[in-house]
This record gives sequence, C-alpha cells and structure tokens, in this order.
Amino acid sequence: MCRKKFWILLLLVIGIGLAHGQSRRIINIPDISGYKTLKCDFHIHTVFSDGTVWPTVRINEAWEEGLDAISITDHIEYRPHSTDVVADHNRSYEIAVPLARQKNILLVKGAEITRSMPPGHLNALFIKNANLLDRDDVFDAIKEARDQGAFLIWNHPGWKAQQPDSTLWWPEHSNLLANGLLHGIEVYNSNEYYPEALEWANEKKLTMFANTDVHGPMNVEEGQHRPMTLVFAKSRTEGGIKEALFNRRTLAYFDNTLVGQSALLEPVFFASLEYDKAPLRIANGINKVVYLRNNSDLDYELELVQPGVGFDAPERLTLKAHHVTPLSLSGNSDEIGSTREINLYYTVKNMFTGPVDNLIVTFTFKNLP
Amino acid sequence: MCRKKFWILLLLVIGIGLAHGQSRRIINIPDISGYKTLKCDFHIHTVFSDGTVWPTVRINEAWEEGLDAISITDHIEYRPHSTDVVADHNRSYEIAVPLARQKNILLVKGAEITRSMPPGHLNALFIKNANLLDRDDVFDAIKEARDQGAFLIWNHPGWKAQQPDSTLWWPEHSNLLANGLLHGIEVYNSNEYYPEALEWANEKKLTMFANTDVHGPMNVEEGQHRPMTLVFAKSRTEGGIKEALFNRRTLAYFDNTLVGQSALLEPVFFASLEYDKAPLRIANGINKVVYLRNNSDLDYELELVQPGVGFDAPERLTLKAHHVTPLSLSGNSDEIGSTREINLYYTVKNMFTGPVDNLIVTFTFKNLP
Amino acid sequence: MCRKKFWILLLLVIGIGLAHGQSRRIINIPDISGYKTLKCDFHIHTVFSDGTVWPTVRINEAWEEGLDAISITDHIEYRPHSTDVVADHNRSYEIAVPLARQKNILLVKGAEITRSMPPGHLNALFIKNANLLDRDDVFDAIKEARDQGAFLIWNHPGWKAQQPDSTLWWPEHSNLLANGLLHGIEVYNSNEYYPEALEWANEKKLTMFANTDVHGPMNVEEGQHRPMTLVFAKSRTEGGIKEALFNRRTLAYFDNTLVGQSALLEPVFFASLEYDKAPLRIANGINKVVYLRNNSDLDYELELVQPGVGFDAPERLTLKAHHVTPLSLSGNSDEIGSTREINLYYTVKNMFTGPVDNLIVTFTFKNLP
Amino acid sequence: MCRKKFWILLLLVIGIGLAHGQSRRIINIPDISGYKTLKCDFHIHTVFSDGTVWPTVRINEAWEEGLDAISITDHIEYRPHSTDVVADHNRSYEIAVPLARQKNILLVKGAEITRSMPPGHLNALFIKNANLLDRDDVFDAIKEARDQGAFLIWNHPGWKAQQPDSTLWWPEHSNLLANGLLHGIEVYNSNEYYPEALEWANEKKLTMFANTDVHGPMNVEEGQHRPMTLVFAKSRTEGGIKEALFNRRTLAYFDNTLVGQSALLEPVFFASLEYDKAPLRIANGINKVVYLRNNSDLDYELELVQPGVGFDAPERLTLKAHHVTPLSLSGNSDEIGSTREINLYYTVKNMFTGPVDNLIVTFTFKNLP
Repeated sequence: MCRKKFWILLLLVIGIGLAHGQSRRIINIPDISGYKTLKCDFHIHTVFSDGTVWPTVRINEAWEEGLDAISITDHIEYRPHSTDVVADHNRSYEIAVPLARQKNILLVKGAEITRSMPPGHLNALFIKNANLLDRDDVFDAIKEARDQGAFLIWNHPGWKAQQPDSTLWWPEHSNLLANGLLHGIEVYNSNEYYPEALEWANEKKLTMFANTDVHGPMNVEEGQHRPMTLVFAKSRTEGGIKEALFNRRTLAYFDNTLVGQSALLEPVFFASLEYDKAPLRIANGINKVVYLRNNSDLDYELELVQPGVGFDAPERLTLKAHHVTPLSLSGNSDEIGSTREINLYYTVKNMFTGPVDNLIVTFTFKNLP
Repeated sequence: MCRKKFWILLLLVIGIGLAHGQSRRIINIPDISGYKTLKCDFHIHTVFSDGTVWPTVRINEAWEEGLDAISITDHIEYRPHSTDVVADHNRSYEIAVPLARQKNILLVKGAEITRSMPPGHLNALFIKNANLLDRDDVFDAIKEARDQGAFLIWNHPGWKAQQPDSTLWWPEHSNLLANGLLHGIEVYNSNEYYPEALEWANEKKLTMFANTDVHGPMNVEEGQHRPMTLVFAKSRTEGGIKEALFNRRTLAYFDNTLVGQSALLEPVFFASLEYDKAPLRIANGINKVVYLRNNSDLDYELELVQPGVGFDAPERLTLKAHHVTPLSLSGNSDEIGSTREINLYYTVKNMFTGPVDNLIVTFTFKNLP
Repeated sequence: MCRKKFWILLLLVIGIGLAHGQSRRIINIPDISGYKTLKCDFHIHTVFSDGTVWPTVRINEAWEEGLDAISITDHIEYRPHSTDVVADHNRSYEIAVPLARQKNILLVKGAEITRSMPPGHLNALFIKNANLLDRDDVFDAIKEARDQGAFLIWNHPGWKAQQPDSTLWWPEHSNLLANGLLHGIEVYNSNEYYPEALEWANEKKLTMFANTDVHGPMNVEEGQHRPMTLVFAKSRTEGGIKEALFNRRTLAYFDNTLVGQSALLEPVFFASLEYDKAPLRIANGINKVVYLRNNSDLDYELELVQPGVGFDAPERLTLKAHHVTPLSLSGNSDEIGSTREINLYYTVKNMFTGPVDNLIVTFTFKNLP
Repeated sequence: MCRKKFWILLLLVIGIGLAHGQSRRIINIPDISGYKTLKCDFHIHTVFSDGTVWPTVRINEAWEEGLDAISITDHIEYRPHSTDVVADHNRSYEIAVPLARQKNILLVKGAEITRSMPPGHLNALFIKNANLLDRDDVFDAIKEARDQGAFLIWNHPGWKAQQPDSTLWWPEHSNLLANGLLHGIEVYNSNEYYPEALEWANEKKLTMFANTDVHGPMNVEEGQHRPMTLVFAKSRTEGGIKEALFNRRTLAYFDNTLVGQSALLEPVFFASLEYDKAPLRIANGINKVVYLRNNSDLDYELELVQPGVGFDAPERLTLKAHHVTPLSLSGNSDEIGSTREINLYYTVKNMFTGPVDNLIVTFTFKNLP
C-alpha cells in the first residue's frame, strides 16, 4: 500500500504543472476618480447545487478571465446531485476559499434563495451561514439573510420560465423593498437583457447587476468577455465591494454595452480616452484633427446630437478599443473664428442610462484665434 | 412545500434552453476505404476521481467538438473529492450514459489503474465492473481488467513525474506484453509527445493513442481541436471500435500532426484531396497547373524528396485546409516530352511514421505527347 | 548595361515565389439544380481610374477569396491619376486579362459611366470597347454600351452624395428602363444596403447585385467575405454569366445575408442542408431529434412561423455554418399519433425576398404510427 | 460638360467617407530610457517601380498598422510598369508626402539601387534627388547617394536569387564598408531571416533591419504585425531616426522575435513588465508568488539558465502579452533563509543577440528574514 502513497504525492506535486491556465487576462476598463473599478460576477453555480463544475473551477476561471471578485450562489432548495454530492450549503464556499486566497480573488459568500414567482429567485451576498437560509417560508429565508447582513438581489426578473408573458413587478417585491429586504436587481443574466429592470432600478433606487448565472464551464471565446458587474469600490476588498453595492455604485457590462447611471458612465468614458486637450485654432475653412486614443476594451459608438455652430464634426464615430481614432473638426462659417469655446455633444450608443436613453457626453475645447 | 416543487419542474424544463452548446462542430478528416474514421478520446476524468467536472459535461464537450466516442477513465486509486462525492467506481459512467445515448456519443466504459512506475498508469477500456479493479496488487488489477475483456493502454509513458530522467521501457512492461496484458500506448498525452512510445509501438505492435487526460473543463480555442485518437472502424459502434483497437487501426492526431502507420496515413492523405487526375501534356517549356483541393482540417506540409526528371516541381508546398493550392509542373528538358508517366515524390512533414520518419507520398500522372 | 538585364531576369523569375497568396479559399454556397452558383463582383476600380491598385491585384484578390468572376469597371469620366498613369479606357482590362486566364478567373469587360443624378453612375458589363463610352451626353454613352451588347446596372442608387435626402427613382430611370437601357440595380454597394432598390428590382424586373465598388486593396478579415453577387449560371463561362444576368438569376450576398427571389433562395437553403429524411415516429409524449447539417458558410437564423399541430418545435433555431444542429420535435397531443405528414414552417431571418419579407421554408416529414 | 464637373466635386467630397481604415492600431512595445521606440519599415515598393499599389496606400497602411515611419524605396533600375506609369524617380515620394503629413507618418525619402551580386540590392535612405542615382556604374550610384547624405543598407543579403548556394560576404562589401558606403543590413526581409547578417552586423558594426520589401497590398492578419525595424530615437522626427540609424540603435522585430544588441533588448524586456519589486520573505518551505504583468505585444518565452541556490523557480515560463503571469518561488533549503539577495537568471528564447545566442536577463529581489 505504500506504493499507492508514493504516486499520490507525485500527483499532488505535478498536478499544478498540468493546470490549464498559466496567465491572467487583463480587462481594460479604467478606474475612475476615487474608486477602483472591480470586475465581478455575483451569480455562479457548482456541483453543490445544479452546476456541473467543482468550486475551484470557478476561482480558476475568474482568475484567468481577469475578474476581481465572484460569489458562488448555489441554490438552497435545488440540489439535483445530492445522491452523489453529500454536503451542507456552506461547502462550495469552503472548498473554493483557499484557492481564492492563493489567487487573490475576492470570494463573496452567497446563496440563491430559489422560489416560484413571486418573489422568484434572490441572491443573498455576504451571508455568514447558508444553512440557515433553508427555510420553508421564503420570507423567513430572506429575513434570515438580511439578519446576517446580506445584500439581496432579485435575479433574472424577466426570466420566461417565471414571467412568461411580461416582466412584472409584483406586490411582494414592493413589500420586500419597503422592508429593506431587496437591494439590487439583475438587468442582465446569462444572455438576457431586461430593460424593465433598468427602469425599476432607476425608479426604486436598486443597484444594477449583470451576472452569468453560469452552471457549466464558462466558455468565453477569444476576444469576448463574460457578462459582469463593474463595482466602483473605495478599496479592492470584500468590505469595499459591500459598501459600493449598498451605495449603488455599479454598472452592468455585457457584450459591448455598459448600463447604469450617468454619474458612473461618464467618468468611465472619459477615463478610457487619452487626447490632446490643448486649445484648437479653427477658423472658417481651417481644419483640425484631434486624435482620440481609446485604452479601454469597449468600442464606443458615438452619434452627434446636434450640428456644431460654425464647424463640421463627424456625425458618427467609432472609437475602437485600443486604437486611435481621428476626430476631424473644420470651420464652416466666419462665426467660428470668434468662438472661444467649442462644445461637441455626442450620444454614446452603447452606454445606456435608461431603456431608451443613452449617455450624452460633451467634448470641450478652447478655440484660439 | 408544494411551492418548491413547482419551480423545480420549471427549472427542469427550462434548463435545456439555457444549455451552452446548441450545435456540433464537424471534424473534417475523411473516411478511408472500408473504414469509418472515428474521432475518439480514451482518457478523461471527472469529479468522481480528481477531475473537476460532472460526467455529463464530458458528453456535451465531446458532442460540441464533433467527437464520436470517449471513455471516462477515472482513477481507481486516487479520489481526492471522496469526502463530498460519495459513490463507487462505476458511478461516473452511469451518470454519463443516458446523455451519451441521447447525443449519440459512444461511451466506452473505462478506468485508470493508477500506480507508481513500473508499470505506471494504465487505462482499461471496455470493462464491465470498475469496482473489481480496486486491488492491492497492480497485476491483480490488470488481470481482472483483462478477464473482463479489457483493452489495456500504457498512459503517458514519458511523464516526468514517473520517468524524470528518460523515457524507459521496464521489464514489467515486457512481462505485461508477453502475457497479453498490454495492447496500446499513448504517444501523446495532454500536451506532451513521446517519440519513444511511437518507436515501441512500431517494434512491439502496440496500438497508438493521443488522448487528453483532461481533468478540468476542455478549453478548445476557436479553430483548434483537442488531441484525439482516430479509430478506423468497420462500423460506428462500440464493437467496431474494440475490433479496430485490437487490430491497431488508429492514428494519433494532435495540433496539425498525424502519427501512425503509413498504411493508414497514406489513404487519409489522398482521401483528403480532390484534383483532376486527367493526363497532363507537359513538354519542354510547357507548364501545367494541377489544383489540389484539400477538404480536410489539416494543413499538409509537403517537401519534394527528389527533383523530377525532366520537369520542375515546387520544392515546398503547403496544402492549406479547406483551400485549393496550385501545383505547378513545368518541363525543363526534351526528355519530358517522351515521358508517359510523371511521378512526384513528396514527404509530408506533418505525418510521422516513426520518431524521425515522415510519410512519403507519390502523385502519379499520365503524360501525353 | 548587360548587368542590369541579368537582375531583371532574376526578379521576374523570383517574383512569383514572393507572391502573397499561395492558396485559394473555398466559398461554400452550394450549386442548385441546373445551375452553377458563381461568386462574382461586378464593380471594381484600379489606378486606371480613381482606384489605388494595379489591375493584376484584382485578379489575385479574387482568386485568393474564391471568386469565379469579376469585372473591372473603371470610371470613364473620372481619372485623377492621369498625370502619371497614361493609357486609354481599355488598358486596365488588357493588363488583367492574362493573369485572369492563368488563374481561371472569368474577367468581364466593363466600365462605369459616371454622371450626376439622374441617372447617376451606371456599370456597363460585357462591353467591347470602353473608349467609345467617353461621350459628352450620358444617354449617348449608355446607348453606345447597349449597342456593344452591354448589361447595364444602376450603381449605389441610395448613395447619399447623389441622393442626400431619400432614395428616389427618377423619370430618367423609367426612360432608360422603357428603352432597354437598364437591366440591373445594386441593392448593396460597399457597406450600404438599399431596401428601396430591392423593392424596385421586384416591381420592375431588374437583376439584383451586391458589389464592392472597391478602390483600395480589399481587406477581408479572417472568417469574413466581400459583398458579392451570386450568379446561377448554366456554365462557368462569360456567356453563362451573361445569360444568367439577363434572366435575373442572381442573389445579393453580404455579411450573413442573402437577398433575392424566393425561387433562388429556397433551393440554396435546402441544398445547404443534409439530414435524414426518413419518416418520423412521433406520438404524444414521444420525442424525435433530426440532425440538420449545414454545409454552407451561412448561419441560417430560423423562426417558427406558427406552432405545430400536435407537436412542439423550437421557436428559434440557428443552423450554424459547418455545424450540425439538432431539431427536436415532440408530440404534445394524441392528434399527432394519427398525423401522417408533419409540416414545419420557418421563416429564415437572414434571407430576404423584399424589404420586410423573409423567405419561408417548409420542412416536411412523413410520420408513421 | 459642367455636368461632369459637378459629380467630380461630389466624388472628392465623398471619397473620404468611403476610405477603409478609420482607426489606427497601437503597437505596444515600450519606450526605453532616453529614447522613443519608433516602429519603422524602410523597404517598400509602389506602382512607380514593380509594386502594385499607389503610394498613398503605403501611408494608409502604415497609419492603420500603427507605424511611425516608412520609406518608399522604388527600384531605380527596374520599372516594369513604365509603359503606363510615366514619371521620374522622385514621383512616388511626392505623391505620398502630403498624406504622410496629414496622417503624421514620417516619410523618409529613399530608393533601391538594384544590381546583380555583388553588391546586390541596396537601399539609400534620406536622399534628396533619386533621379541622380540612375547611373550606369553601381558604385557611382552608391557614391551619389552617399554624397546626398544617405544611409545605405544591404538588402536581403541571403536572397536565393542572388546567393543561391550560401549567404556570402563579397570583397565588394568590404570595399563599400571601408569607404563609408555601407551602414546597415537587413537581417530579415519579407519572410526570410538571415542569421549570417546578424553575425556580420555584430562583427562589422552594421545597423540591423527588418523590412517588408512589400510589393502588393500589405495583408496583416488579425493579431499579427508586419516585420519592422524598431528605431530608438531621441525624438520622433526624421532627424531623430537618422541619428539613431547611424548610431546603430535598432532592433529587428518579426513574428514574436526581437533581434539585436543586448543593450537595447534588455531595457525593452524590462520596460515591458510591471511587477512588485518589494523584498520577498522566502525561507525553507515558504513560497512566494510574484505577478509579472506584460504590457507589450510580445509573448516572452523564458527558460531558467541555472537552478536557484536554495529555492525552486519555474524552468519555463511564458509571459503572455497583455496578461499577468505568476512567478512562483519556493525555498528548498535552510540556506535561503540567510540569503539577502535572490537572483534569477533566465534566457529569453525569443530575443536573439547572435545567431545562436539569446538575451539573458536577471531578476533581482531582496530577501528579508
């Protein structure tokens, strides 16, 4: 039998070398004044509920993809592998936490309270003991989470399985909200976008989330990224995340789109760009090119809101990620010669503040004679 | 409590719609005369040994990647998740088999006998009861597998953890071979190639394999493929595979490389190509272009073995996958005018018959005056 | 000076070896019954008008991208490089034609009659002498082309530079049409789609085109293709193309979209697919999967037109290019048990027959008890 | 005729909007102390010699690909398009220079003196009048270039067309060198690498170049780059480039490889990396991970030169471009506890200082008890 022990040691030592990912991607979305921009996914499953991967896989995926924080949120009420996987509701967190520490991934302890609509599925983050959420009555479970200090998110509010005809806000949700039992809402889940949730978040002061709800292995294609929640935190700590979530400093990031409040979208937009802010010297018939360098991973799609007074500017402009795009301004009347400040108003077609509202940004340049 | 039941049903119904892969890739390596070319991976782990995914993940991966057959070969002796995952050695097969049937993936029942060197790790395929392989003495385990009708493979024979200094064939392996307890060998495992194993396979009449030995999720990048064993079977059935393995009709396929016997490599090469085989009319100073269409996924890298007699042919030629490549032949002496058969000898730099030997192919054309 | 001659010879010999593309891509859009599906681009410029590449570049590009036929259509009236490039209007064709023959690219002689709106820019294909199109009056030029047997296309009818406010059909176009001086229209040019042109083509029996109007080097990204006109010809000859154009057997192909008549779209769709057409055996509660293999380069996006009677079918289905997609049908009432023919009606969202009309396809299966 | 004028104006206005590239890629190779790292290509052809594109194409390509400087070096002696393209040797420069200024590309005036071997083909950069290089005697042409202040490069010294059997240094080259008529040499041209040239450059103090010698359109695949010469200049000006070339401050950059002097390679390597340089606290059995962030476009391939004394370090490490790679160090003897400085010696397999010599880099960390 000592023969067996020998190779077990070898396997343990060597296993690391065989591990898949040897390097960590960098997600380029800039920090903004006063805050670190943390890349997070707060809705994830493992074999300990109805997922199909071991908890450590979630840490490795997050590390390789460049995330800062995740929460494993296994269902309390739904555990189809329980014949073979025998453990309590805290176990997936316990298994993942040593690797999370080693890889410097912030692992937020969570669970998914999984009920029929209303109120549907809710994620409880920053909980202390998931086992105590296993209660017959859903409101008892939610209150228990709250008593543990949880941040509570309404998941996939427009999920067809629970809201087949239209995406409704139920009295039960008003009730939760009124009692401090609901703090956030997913405006994006997996591959579905819920514009109604964006509207509710604005009206009812809920924090917005984009999460994966991933059950199987993540499969992020080259050049793509998983849906994620950007958290603007004072520090890269669990406490920093918690403070930011309760103060609604998040954006939902999916595909090439950012969704959230303009107070966060605008600084992200301008922090992504590098360009010469020196005064221009545009006059009638005189042209000037400003080179906009976009250091972020987003292609910003701009559309001119209104024509410039005394100058021409491009109606449409794509600021391609990691490229330099010229912005060409040319005077078209004598008026421009005496204008001392040039303002350019663009709507950013892939940054949403509401279901049909885009961020509007203003480029301002001094103009010299 | 009936509330719980309700959403469980919903989850079951909807879960399918959320599944990742909706379509199956096609691996383009042609069938050859008399045989179907099956794409197989015979070395795979799950959470039931030291892998990190649920057995169904392996079926989904195989289906999406276009494989025909896999074997889940969890370690008998090494089960680090056994605190949480409580099941016998047949369980991973049992969980995977219904999905395999539904997806039309051939699932070969297997297990990995996992010991120190010699004899190292051996995969037993086509076994009936994996629990019976759990024996103190490794040879008892191997004999048990044989008695169940198993095909036995020496895995990763050059693995540094077990053969740190050089890749050795041990007396124990001769012993296994002499007693009909060893039938195949991995010439490729995960991302390692063992040329010594190729040599032994040729000398000792072992069947060659390329397997993944995958533990975590497969991560096949766009345009890439997992290492796999091509099996030339009389039928796409488990029995067809077994007959082919015992008769050594396999090739190892990894990166852009095929390794094995020329009797299999050559028909694969020519079955990959489509071109006009009509007689040429080359004379001194007369040029003719033959368009070679390569319908396979391999880029074939050709190098001229010897100059043509009376004509020029390209010294190097890449027959790019799914492209048409011109082969330009031009007469360079009067001799060619009276030549009735033109033979072109090319070595295929990415098809290996031995550690330093490549397949040589002959293109033959009639030449008319 | 003989020294100079020596290296010139060397350059000529070696130049071929340095050529960029060594292989030709295959565009996978199937032939249909009775016709070859030729991939064509009938609007292309060179340095001999306002383009920036030599005519041979156009042949090499077409060959590498897998096209069958092109027409170089340099402007008659606009030649900004004429200070340095001194030649008549036939010269770009003359330079390109030897390489076209060598590479087996069909080169249709053409020119672009380039005037203000109306009638705008018109391509004349199959002309004999481009110099004779250099006439003061645009209608004289068009008549000259017609007298040479030309096929005449209205180019980019919605080009903002000539139709700034809306895409208009002018009396002059009615006049041309009535006099047999207008045969086709671009529904797609460069990167612009003109739905109005599709409508006019249907109403006025014009042949539809998608062309590049390329001026600089073609830059086709990996996995992409240039906009092109699919011509359904009885033979792969210039005559075959001419007959097909005058008989309106074309489709416009751009991005992942095909536009044209359903009589051509439908056979292309079904010729792209391979699946088992054997009778099904669906009954209430019984499920059957049909595997649809799509051998074309298009991802077909299907949407169910109406629910099946007695069975469920997927509402949305993407038949990914070069993949196999399962179509799962399941009986949901006893009625299906006595149904002998199952018809599935899908609209193909990326195949257009009109500005807002999609092709509808019917999958028909026999059903056995 | 006024009708013609109208559309010409329209074309001029609109032409810009149809231009291909709207944004400029960023090549990420860092500046080093005291110098800007300019990305340059000094060997390029147009239709004014045997190339197949208009000179402006070269400026657009350079701009889109992120280059700082190019030289158009049309052959003086070889102009196969001269029947149609009628102009003197300065013309391609003249045509390109306005667009170069507009796009902020430095355009170095050049020409290729194109003779049989010896001395073969030489590029003359920074010339004033290319017409004067059209001389019968090659040495007269070279001297004329020198008298104009030219920097002279021996192009593709191992080109099989001129050096069919082996890459030779001829007495004529010694003669040129001795007379100040040869300053640089291409170690890479198009897709060929000449290790002999690297050796000569080291021995004879020649400046190294990697150039494209492009004749047709550049076709840079997604994620790739053209071969280029990195110039370490005091300023981003033509004068800055000239000073740097005459002082041998260049590296050749092709594929994933950099070739040149270690005095330039080493600062590029370390300027590419960002990592915490704080003291470590490694002791026997204590492990520490340093995260190496590689901000450059190169994947650096490291191989340990010698084992650490008292600690283990990875034998091989790939610092993937734009990724973070962990470097794990672990104490393996008591000795390490008293070591105050840890030195790690790695050879960089893709940075060459000689034909078979790689750059060796040293990572130095303080170690605290």
